Formats: sequence, structure tokens, C-alpha cells
Amino acid sequence: MTGTPPSAPIRTLADPGTPFAVVDVHRTRRNIERLAQRADRLGVTLRPHVKTAKSLDVAALMHDGTPGPVTVSTLAEAEAFADGGYTDITYAVGVDPHKLPRVIALLRRGVTLRTLLDSSEQAAFVADAAREAGIGIPAQIEIDCDGHRGGLKPDAPGLVGIGRILHDAGCLDGVLTHAGESYFAHTAEDRRLAAKNERDTAVTAADTLRAAGLPVNVVSVGSTPTAHAAEDLTGVTELRAGNYVFFDLVMAGLGVCDLDDLALSVVVTVIGHRSEYGWIITDGGWMAMSRDRGTSAQAQDQGYGLVTDLTGHLIPGLVMSAASQEHGTLTPRDGGSLPDLPVGTRLRILPNHACATAAQHHGYHVVDGTQPEGPAPAIQGAWNRVSGW
Amino acid sequence: MTGTPPSAPIRTLADPGTPFAVVDVHRTRRNIERLAQRADRLGVTLRPHVKTAKSLDVAALMHDGTPGPVTVSTLAEAEAFADGGYTDITYAVGVDPHKLPRVIALLRRGVTLRTLLDSSEQAAFVADAAREAGIGIPAQIEIDCDGHRGGLKPDAPGLVGIGRILHDAGCLDGVLTHAGESYFAHTAEDRRLAAKNERDTAVTAADTLRAAGLPVNVVSVGSTPTAHAAEDLTGVTELRAGNYVFFDLVMAGLGVCDLDDLALSVVVTVIGHRSEYGWIITDGGWMAMSRDRGTSAQAQDQGYGLVTDLTGHLIPGLVMSAASQEHGTLTPRDGGSLPDLPVGTRLRILPNHACATAAQHHGYHVVDGTQPEGPAPAIQGAWNRVSGW
Repeated sequence: MTGTPPSAPIRTLADPGTPFAVVDVHRTRRNIERLAQRADRLGVTLRPHVKTAKSLDVAALMHDGTPGPVTVSTLAEAEAFADGGYTDITYAVGVDPHKLPRVIALLRRGVTLRTLLDSSEQAAFVADAAREAGIGIPAQIEIDCDGHRGGLKPDAPGLVGIGRILHDAGCLDGVLTHAGESYFAHTAEDRRLAAKNERDTAVTAADTLRAAGLPVNVVSVGSTPTAHAAEDLTGVTELRAGNYVFFDLVMAGLGVCDLDDLALSVVVTVIGHRSEYGWIITDGGWMAMSRDRGTSAQAQDQGYGLVTDLTGHLIPGLVMSAASQEHGTLTPRDGGSLPDLPVGTRLRILPNHACATAAQHHGYHVVDGTQPEGPAPAIQGAWNRVSGW
Repeated sequence: MTGTPPSAPIRTLADPGTPFAVVDVHRTRRNIERLAQRADRLGVTLRPHVKTAKSLDVAALMHDGTPGPVTVSTLAEAEAFADGGYTDITYAVGVDPHKLPRVIALLRRGVTLRTLLDSSEQAAFVADAAREAGIGIPAQIEIDCDGHRGGLKPDAPGLVGIGRILHDAGCLDGVLTHAGESYFAHTAEDRRLAAKNERDTAVTAADTLRAAGLPVNVVSVGSTPTAHAAEDLTGVTELRAGNYVFFDLVMAGLGVCDLDDLALSVVVTVIGHRSEYGWIITDGGWMAMSRDRGTSAQAQDQGYGLVTDLTGHLIPGLVMSAASQEHGTLTPRDGGSLPDLPVGTRLRILPNHACATAAQHHGYHVVDGTQPEGPAPAIQGAWNRVSGW
């Protein structure tokens, strides 16, 4: 955290130009602690996915200030985390040939950069590149546990062949699966079953490879919903999750967290009223919130977000119901009355999807929600974000 | 345009790491020319809204390289364009008190920074700030022509009072309206009527102020759909539009442009296949495209975008149907067959909403679609983008 120098006047959420992103460090620490304790109990390594916060400052909280294993979604993240001293990084998006020079450059810097793939053509070019570079390129085979996106089914006929191509080139690192459909698992029991299926699928694939004489070091599973629901991870070596550091309305809607766990919000200012329509207009539109409307598929649609005052207390029944590029519209739910919020009033909006909202900002102002309350929380520092690819 | 030095090897769309944004300069020039000619015929000044491209390089094409009048959506844009020599800037989002110091700083630099407001409380603090600073703060009164967002109805009882507060402080600059609902006007006749209504509303408001003895210099109207439909802008002084420089699938769906007018796309790489589901997986997800799904409200839902080859030719029937953060899923429409696109193949995705997709990128690679075709168009240069607030 790059703190405000002690001699500078204390700045609060009433000071920076709106809109801007703010993170409650207390909630972030609590969310991090909660999953770290779960991983400990389950006997697996936690490998946080840094794609949500994309921040070395947030990652420092995950690992008590010492670089530990992380997951990334882009090579830009991998490079920034390597610059920050992280040496064990899984790049969890299927690799394509043109990205291998950057992968090899990271490996040559001493970073264990683990790649992901799910086809024999990818395995072949990874193996060829490894031989040509004279270096092992750790590669994990993506396993599909729920038809969400990429990966091989654990009984796919090609699995062992891919494993052998990688092993012969000194590249086979393990298997990885992600229960992406758990974002639509609306009960605790559904998430428990999704976690069990995620674990079983990964372990089955690992066992298939081992039965063919291929060594499997890493058996990696995870998603924020399943990471919080898993009861038994026997055979799994590591757990991944990303969203959990901040959580969001989608996760609260699923029941994975409570609303008071949400650590990311966007500070906006009231710029107008249309009382004839029941609208309050703010200067925070989709540029500040993203276009993500994840809760539209849930029982309770939260529009573009729920509204709190500057100290983080929910304003009951007020929803950000519409967005244009730099305008937000707040409306009372179910025809309720419009609170009196004059032009210039600052509010905070809790987002649908923390990963998408955070991506609209270059960094975060940091507050501690447990500090004594005034009209506006003091800003404790600023955290940067990595962007681009 | 910051061109590649002549001595450097020619780079093409096959070279940069994917995903990245690319602009076809030929289409951009054609789009710019088309609206410039319309504005000339209609006898109004064109004041392009730079919120779509947020690029001094694109703006240079709009004004033949000489800074002209522009509209901005953030003060960060205003400051960047002021740095680039632009001295006539309308900040078309309702102003709030805490932004006035930055507005005044721009005015003191010699920039005519025109603000927007729609309430007597805003007029009062603008007037107070102007008196305190000893400077006129040009302010336009936002007029609501279609219930889309902010503004006063032209017959609102408060209109003249606001005008008087501003005039007495030397701040009254004019009236401004935006036919935001024209984005849902699905026939040429509907857009023609929306343009007529937009014009009539603005002129009515201006006439009301003038009848009260208040001078109205600027009568500003515009949106991309109405700007391309207006037939008579008598009484209007200027026309605003933003999206038209790039256009997008929403505009093509409305019929405001053709698909071959779309100047912005995102280059992605195939990273996998799920033939059992009929999916091609790419490395371009919502981080590269935005979460905008504007065409979902249109007759033809285009998913997250239409797919072209690297030279910009549509691949018939292929749609980007799903997105996660760094993964895109391409599927054939109506159960068609999946084209043979091996891992490593580069494609371009045409976006729903150019403003939102462009916002996911720090800049643009530039190609000229009219150049002789090879397997991959040559990159002619790079254009930067302004971001933040």
C-alpha cells in the first residue's frame, strides 16, 4: 500500500474526482482469511487468481507480504507479478503458439510459468518450443468438469496421448479444471455437488494419466463458489479462486457471501434528478461500473448495482437501474419513494461483478470500514492495477 | 498517427499479441466524411463527441488536422484535448460542484469549456463559482426531448429561472439536447421523426429563453442516429455525434450504417475447440470486447460480435456467442457447420458497441482496408486513447 505521507492532510472519499473505485481493506482481509483457513482445513495449497484485483498490493495481503503461488489470466499479469518477485505462476488460459516466446522469457527469468492446453496440437507446439529452447515449459492439461468452456472430458480418448507428448518433452505438469457452471449453482447443496464433481473430475483425469505411467504433479481445481463449498479435496493439490477477495452482488445473490462482505465499490456523485420519473442521475455510468449485468440471471436482479452512502451503509430499496457511458440512473425498487439526495451527494455503488467493474479502473483508493465513522471514510492509500495483455 | 519508422520491418495484424483493438483508417475517414458533408448541407457546425475513440489521432481526421469544436464525456478528455490544442470543448455530462475547480483551470488556460446543467441548484453554484473566480463559466441548459436521461422539458416552469441565474453571472451559453431514445428507433422514418423532435425541442427551449430576454448562443442537438436522419436543422447551431467514427453492430442493426462501415474490431486468436458443442474458443473474452450486448434488444441478436478473417471479410454465420474474462466462444448460427479454424488462427470480432469495446483498450493498431490484400493487413501506425476521469 502506498500510503498518504503523514504530513499531508487526511483525504477522504469526499475528495477525489468521481467516479473512482474504492476497496475496503478490512473486508478484503476478512475474505482472504476466510478462504485461506478453508484451504488449510482441506489440506491444499491456495493459488489465488489475481485476475480480479490485478494488484500486487492485494496479492500481498493474500500471502502475508511474501510472494506465493498465483494464477493469472494474461501474460501482462504474469510479467507484472514476476517483476514483483512472484516465481510460481499459472497462466490459466489455453496457450497459443504466438505467446510462447513471452512464456519462455519468463521461464528464463526463473519464473515457474505453468501453461494450460487441451489439444494434441497445442501439446505438440509446446513440446517443440521446449525442445528448441532447451527448457521445460510446464504445461497442465485442462479438464472439463461441467461443459462450461474449454477442456477435455476426463475420459476423452486423447488425454493420455496429450500427456505423453508433454511428458516426452519434459513439460507435463498436471491437470487443471474450473467449475465455471458453479456461478449458476443457486443452493449450497448445488455448490457442494459442483465442488465434489470438480474434484472427482480432476482426480479421475490425473489417475488416468498416472495409470498410463505419466507423472502428474499438480491437480488443480477451483472457482469462488466451489472453493467455498468443497468438503473433501483428497487427491487435489491446489485450489484456485479469484473473485473472493472482493466478492460482488452475483456472489451475494448465490449465497456465497453476504452483502457486507463486498469489498469493492464505486464512488459516484449525484448530478441531477428527474422526480417525474423517480430517477436520481449520477456521474457513474457503465464506464465506471462496466456493462456487466450478472444478477439479471438471478432471482433478484440488482440492476447495475446497489447503492450505499459514503460510509458503506445500504440505502434501502435504491438500485442503479440504468447506465449510459458516464451517467447512472438510480431508482427506488417497487415504486418506493426517492430519498433526498441533493446534487453533489456522494454515494457508493456495489457492483454485479467485481472482476468487470475493477477492470474499468486504473487502481483503487483504500478505506478501512472498521475505522471510526465520520461523514466520509479516510483514504488510507492507493493500490495500482495491472491492465492490458 | 505515430507511424512505424520506414526502416523497421513491416508489421501486420499477425504480429502483436492478441487480443488487441484495430481501426480501419479508410472506413473511419469515410464515416467522418459522410457526416461532415451532412452537417455542411444542413448548415450547422459539427461538434464531434470524442467519447467513442477518445483519441487525438482520430480527432485529427475529423478536423483535417486542425483542432475544432469537440464534445467530451469526462474532464480527463477535456484536459487531454486542451493539451492537444483544442480550445472549444463541451463537457456534455451534468456538472457537479466538486468538478468546477478543474473546469475553471481549463477556462484560465484559454479553453472555452462549456458545461451542462439542468437544475437551479447547479445554476446557482456555477454562478457563484464564476463570480468568485471572476470568470464566466459557459453553461448550457440540458433539455430533455425524449425522456431518455437528464434535462428539463422545454416547457418546464424552471427553465427561464435557470437561464436568468446563469445570464446574471455571465454564464448562459445555450441549450443542448440528445435524442438518446433514437438508439431504439428501428426505422428510417422513426429516426427522421426523432431528429425532428430533437430539433424542435431544442429550438422551442431556446425560443422560450429568448422570449424572456435571455440570449441563447448555442442550440446543440445530436446523437449518431438522428445526426444521420435529420432533414432540417433550422434554428440549430451545432450537431453532435460520437459513435459514427467507428460505428458498430448496434448501429448496423438499426440501419444507420452498413456492416462494411464498421471501423473498429478486436483481433483474437483461436486457442481451442469443443467440436462436441460446436464451439471454437478464442483468447478474446469480455475484457477485450466489453460486456456490452446492445444487439440483444434488436431483431438480430449478434451475441458479443460477428467474426471476420484477418483481412476483415465476414465468416458467414459465425457469432461470438459467449464470453468469460479472457475466453470467447464462437458458434455457428442456426446449427450451421463449424469452419476449420485451427489453434493459432487469428480472427477479428466486430463489436456490439464501439464506445464500450474501445474503452477496454489503451489504443488502436491502424490498418487501411483498401490496401492490397495479403494474408494479414499491414499495421500503418498506432493511435493512443485517453482513459480515466
